[in-house]
Amino acid sequence: MTADPDDAFGIRPGEVVAELPERFDAALYFIGRIRTPWTRREQCPKNPGQSDALCTVELDPRWLQALSGLETVSHVFLLYWMDRARRDLVLQSPRHYETRRGTFALRSPARPNPIALSVVRLIRIEGNKLTVIGVDCLDGTPLLDIKPYFASIDSVPDAKVGWHAEKAR
Amino acid sequence: MTADPDDAFGIRPGEVVAELPERFDAALYFIGRIRTPWTRREQCPKNPGQSDALCTVELDPRWLQALSGLETVSHVFLLYWMDRARRDLVLQSPRHYETRRGTFALRSPARPNPIALSVVRLIRIEGNKLTVIGVDCLDGTPLLDIKPYFASIDSVPDAKVGWHAEKAR
Repeated sequence: MTADPDDAFGIRPGEVVAELPERFDAALYFIGRIRTPWTRREQCPKNPGQSDALCTVELDPRWLQALSGLETVSHVFLLYWMDRARRDLVLQSPRHYETRRGTFALRSPARPNPIALSVVRLIRIEGNKLTVIGVDCLDGTPLLDIKPYFASIDSVPDAKVGWHAEKAR
Repeated sequence: MTADPDDAFGIRPGEVVAELPERFDAALYFIGRIRTPWTRREQCPKNPGQSDALCTVELDPRWLQALSGLETVSHVFLLYWMDRARRDLVLQSPRHYETRRGTFALRSPARPNPIALSVVRLIRIEGNKLTVIGVDCLDGTPLLDIKPYFASIDSVPDAKVGWHAEKAR
């Protein structure tokens, strides 16, 4: 169905939603929080590469031993939960783009499973706190996972996003 | 607590588990399935870079429009759910490594939120089916998300995983 442009949940004209499944299939634990300088959405960097701010990942002490070995790692993936995002948008018009595109062609937080992904530089680890550079989320965002970044499998310098390259021309 | 080496769920000697939280904090929809040639764990490639097999992502047709624009993208992140993995391991000894390490220093499927992440090459899209190269999971693995890979923020060719580099020497 096409969204009502007056919808209270902030759908923009032309955006399209799907009917959500009746049931959930799996469940998540929040394993910590990400502390950033940003408390309102409009303050957040447009993407994780746009800020050099030092941010802090506060891990639930229950998982402290799981950091063992991470001190040898230069970059990590953080997975976090965009708990305020709509989950039913299939075609959307992000504020800073003119054209409507499919959810899976975008990095928008609004998606069926609002899991955000950032590659961050790991500066130091002190107890259950990680100091990192490269997140773009609101202060207090729930953390889902930390994974080491392996350049051999995760780095693709020549990857292309055609719609984005055309926009930049 | 230290794991009982005879534990029926396959903990290895020296591995350590945490007590899981009493409640879940958020919930996921499975949005499709990944079809691969591998039906037993020991058949799977050790990591996603080790196979050139063509695999298929079958998206639930409910989300079909959300693929719009993805045909211009060369590489995507797939997030998928490792539904058979333990979630309580904090120190673990993967089969192919000698040393015990923290869960967050590893890409093992066993983690508090068993969300796997692979960078895959997108070969083609036909209807709700994506042909990709670069997954390492069992046939039928539940899909959680598809995201476009932006080299500008996601590619870090000089990232280092110290413990892994030392092992390779």
